Amino acid sequence: MNFTKIKGDITSAEGFKAGAVKTGIKNNSLDLAIIYCEDSAETAAVYTTNQVQAAPIKICREHLADGSARAVVINSGIANACTGEEGLQNALQMTETAAGSLHLKKEDVLVASTGIIGKQLPMSKIKAGIEEASEKLAKDSGKDAAKAIQTTDTTVKRAAAAMELDGHEVKIGGMAKGSGMIEPNMATMLSFITTDASIKSGLLQEVLKECVDVSFNKITVDGDQSTNDMIAVMASGKSGAPEITAGSAALEKFKSALKYVTEELAKMIVKDGEGATKFIEINVSGASDSKQAQKIARQIAGSPLVKTAVYGESPSWGRIAAAAGSAVDDFDSQDLEIELNGKKVFGPEHEVHEFPGDILSSSTIRIDVDPGCGEASDTVWTCDFSDEYVEINAKYYS
Amino acid sequence: MNFTKIKGDITSAEGFKAGAVKTGIKNNSLDLAIIYCEDSAETAAVYTTNQVQAAPIKICREHLADGSARAVVINSGIANACTGEEGLQNALQMTETAAGSLHLKKEDVLVASTGIIGKQLPMSKIKAGIEEASEKLAKDSGKDAAKAIQTTDTTVKRAAAAMELDGHEVKIGGMAKGSGMIEPNMATMLSFITTDASIKSGLLQEVLKECVDVSFNKITVDGDQSTNDMIAVMASGKSGAPEITAGSAALEKFKSALKYVTEELAKMIVKDGEGATKFIEINVSGASDSKQAQKIARQIAGSPLVKTAVYGESPSWGRIAAAAGSAVDDFDSQDLEIELNGKKVFGPEHEVHEFPGDILSSSTIRIDVDPGCGEASDTVWTCDFSDEYVEINAKYYS
Repeated sequence: MNFTKIKGDITSAEGFKAGAVKTGIKNNSLDLAIIYCEDSAETAAVYTTNQVQAAPIKICREHLADGSARAVVINSGIANACTGEEGLQNALQMTETAAGSLHLKKEDVLVASTGIIGKQLPMSKIKAGIEEASEKLAKDSGKDAAKAIQTTDTTVKRAAAAMELDGHEVKIGGMAKGSGMIEPNMATMLSFITTDASIKSGLLQEVLKECVDVSFNKITVDGDQSTNDMIAVMASGKSGAPEITAGSAALEKFKSALKYVTEELAKMIVKDGEGATKFIEINVSGASDSKQAQKIARQIAGSPLVKTAVYGESPSWGRIAAAAGSAVDDFDSQDLEIELNGKKVFGPEHEVHEFPGDILSSSTIRIDVDPGCGEASDTVWTCDFSDEYVEINAKYYS
Repeated sequence: MNFTKIKGDITSAEGFKAGAVKTGIKNNSLDLAIIYCEDSAETAAVYTTNQVQAAPIKICREHLADGSARAVVINSGIANACTGEEGLQNALQMTETAAGSLHLKKEDVLVASTGIIGKQLPMSKIKAGIEEASEKLAKDSGKDAAKAIQTTDTTVKRAAAAMELDGHEVKIGGMAKGSGMIEPNMATMLSFITTDASIKSGLLQEVLKECVDVSFNKITVDGDQSTNDMIAVMASGKSGAPEITAGSAALEKFKSALKYVTEELAKMIVKDGEGATKFIEINVSGASDSKQAQKIARQIAGSPLVKTAVYGESPSWGRIAAAAGSAVDDFDSQDLEIELNGKKVFGPEHEVHEFPGDILSSSTIRIDVDPGCGEASDTVWTCDFSDEYVEINAKYYS
């Protein structure tokens, strides 16, 4: 490993501060955060592919056209999605208010929201909150900021890594919100990452995309995402290390560390699944190509029958076979093999193997599926599905 | 209406009898049924499109190659899926045993199974059951047969219709098993329909396909089905009415009646959804084409967030908008309109309308979505999603 796992979050990297406040949108909880960089930060972001995009997403695309930002303002409780022209103006005002308080241009401020869809933001509360948060910016507010962006989350999601580049310590730290759901494609997910590495936004964008594909995209299905999903990374360049350039060894180091941070945050989201009691890793190998592997893995991950079986610790591998068979139409069920937690339970030739009845009693469940078509593979992470999930989602008006 | 709704089932049409017994596979419940036609019946069937197909499906395809059948034997409790060569031999033996008891050729017997995947059938119990059921064939056993094919069903699903053709009363009666699930594509569904109309299997196949598309396929998603799904219709010709031919008025009458029977049975499956408390009809109109309409309707129907919201009577139309937006990538969210139970709640231009807080308190919920793209429409039926669903599926080892 060419980086070190460290305790930390969005204020760990040099140049970044954060502030978090209670605006009153959420009942006496932190619900608004600002991430602030003392100089212009090279910034990259990936957004939801949902056709219905929240107002903040539209503003971010505009404000990030130049690849740089100084601050991000994020509120939770109301998503500012499906809010029309008024919502767009409100998102813009959030950036203007922050720009005013922080003495920036509005184009240097990004904005994100998460929560109930279709409600307008109470702008007087939001504006007061932004002003208060701007005054409270501090190096030790990373945890509070991570709390302030949560909705149904039950854990604070932070991860960080450090590496040495040319004699300088370079840090990457991030936070995320989101709860793994029965259909991960509907989870609202936000993640913000900061680093004091020096890297241009174009290259940062490439690295971010690559890291997101093997982390957050493993818990989202086929690009189907919520109206508000967004992942952004800001690079202050304050570590003192030389600029990371394409093709360099430094870039590989940086990429490994960023992958670690994004993977940790993505797994935290799954583990904090609404009502989740078990973490499930689904590995498909022996597929004809990566698309087939992905389809099979995601069909299994999305199957409520599989997820409830794991919750009940019923080793119903037949549901896994049925999900695999309905995902694609190009494998021979005679070749299908299924393992649960490393033990072969089914196939090939439809052979049913003996296995312990308590094979699913562990808190981490590994499902291996081999359709016997080739060499391609894919992995998806998800969680089980309990009655508590229903409780949470029947009551949460979003 | 050119037909009459009647009380009835698979023994209502002339020429058909049924028998149902307890083999012991299920705890002291009816679990094996035979449908018997006193002469050769023109027969049509549609099968699951799952890549993993249960043994009985393979046998049916072979035995129905000539378009005629005399009997169907069906067991519940064990699905005989993922059971390899032994399972295939067992399914074949079921047809041979029934053929022996009923003095038929095995090619005239169809077979179906539903229940746990991956377990072999206890053939001595099955054979004894088939022999017993063959001796008990009667006109009044339609209800028992409908009970014998159930698994997690809580209601007996039967529907029938009668029409006059050329002075003769013609009847259609059917039964079904299946419980609407959170992802309807995973529900195992069986349906058997009998009629005393005279119609050749080729034409019957066309009519069946057309009726299934607007009934059972409205509750299954994109052809993703379980390993055992099958719908068959047998025509005895015993009504005395002349043969129904292509392009005739009689065919239209027959089709209307068969549509009614299949639609009733399909709706019964949804209403008996595992843990379901509400029936949901999702209508998409104003789509660019039927494919877009279908995709949007099915994404909404498959969304656990929408289904739990309906269960909790939370009018979270934002979840409906998010599901619609993630289904397709070719509409403008500015044009999106959503109605709940006939009241406009959202759009166009992102307008949020006032509506009563108890708008989802009814037991039947209608969701209308218009993406504002064109004239095409589609309808999907589903049910809500309660904690009881999780209970049932965490414990049922299938």
